[in-house]
Amino acid sequence: MTDTSEDARVARTRGDVSRAALEVLTKQGWDAVSHAHIARVAGYSKTTLYTHWPSKIDLVGLALDALGDMPHSVPTGDIRTDLINELRAFRSAVVDIKLDRILIVLAQWGTSVEEIAEIRTRLIADGEGVARAMFARIADDVVAESAIHLLSGVVVCPALMHGQVPDDKVIETSVDIILGGIEAVQGRSNSSS
Amino acid sequence: MTDTSEDARVARTRGDVSRAALEVLTKQGWDAVSHAHIARVAGYSKTTLYTHWPSKIDLVGLALDALGDMPHSVPTGDIRTDLINELRAFRSAVVDIKLDRILIVLAQWGTSVEEIAEIRTRLIADGEGVARAMFARIADDVVAESAIHLLSGVVVCPALMHGQVPDDKVIETSVDIILGGIEAVQGRSNSSS
Repeated sequence: MTDTSEDARVARTRGDVSRAALEVLTKQGWDAVSHAHIARVAGYSKTTLYTHWPSKIDLVGLALDALGDMPHSVPTGDIRTDLINELRAFRSAVVDIKLDRILIVLAQWGTSVEEIAEIRTRLIADGEGVARAMFARIADDVVAESAIHLLSGVVVCPALMHGQVPDDKVIETSVDIILGGIEAVQGRSNSSS
Repeated sequence: MTDTSEDARVARTRGDVSRAALEVLTKQGWDAVSHAHIARVAGYSKTTLYTHWPSKIDLVGLALDALGDMPHSVPTGDIRTDLINELRAFRSAVVDIKLDRILIVLAQWGTSVEEIAEIRTRLIADGEGVARAMFARIADDVVAESAIHLLSGVVVCPALMHGQVPDDKVIETSVDIILGGIEAVQGRSNSSS
């Protein structure tokens, strides 16, 4: 059953080009993103791409659309287990879909290009959301805000600064440090107030 | 007293072009780095630049050379104070010399271009070195390795994922979480061994 209506055709083109753009961006990087190259990978004409997405930023925005929701684990209710699983899901996304390359593109363009800034805000909010909710239940605002950056750092810093991902031992130890540290900090502020 | 020897002239050209390349890279970003543009900013001919640094990667390598040593605070001997000061120095470098943009370039090219990989290894080792030494004194290997990524995350994650820098409260709270957490984790492993 082939839907040949105009809308369906445009949606299909958009989907194909979007996936091709994401593939090029994550596998070959920013410099490889061009109308000619993505048209070839997606199997469309350069003219089609220029008509719908005239600039390089349009193509990048399209690629990021194809990312979909950020990866999350299924919560168990135990905060230590759930934070470890969140970090493992984040690590898998770095290995499997090169999420680190996406973060680099968002960091590079999120400050200057409005469309990329919007996508960045949405993706980061989605990515951090589960852990933010967990920290909000056990910690005050500043402590929870600190904890979320500490947690992201466990995957982001090895990936972006060393080109590596953390092993299970580092992930588990990091979560233990964060949870132990929150308890210490919250205990202190509670007893002093 | 002008030194007109060939070596001194080449060194001066290299210095001028290097500073211009760093300025363009951090203020205008990766896409602005071109022989024509950097030649104009540095006040040399395009031909001179092409002769000494034929590729764009050469220009970027040259820019990173101009960075010099990573910023560090003067140690006081108190680990909490010193870690807070290290994070403040890191934050200042993000604000003043756009170190976050440098990290993005290193992350983007460090995995594929050998010269950038070498510069990355050197800069990151220099940047993390002081804090690594501090953690090595109070923690086991895996704990110290985890702690260094947690610490870097305090500045790296807000900068690269949110386009912001952490305020003093977040920096201090993060250091307290890390130190409190290390104590909790080390205490546990010592009592169980």
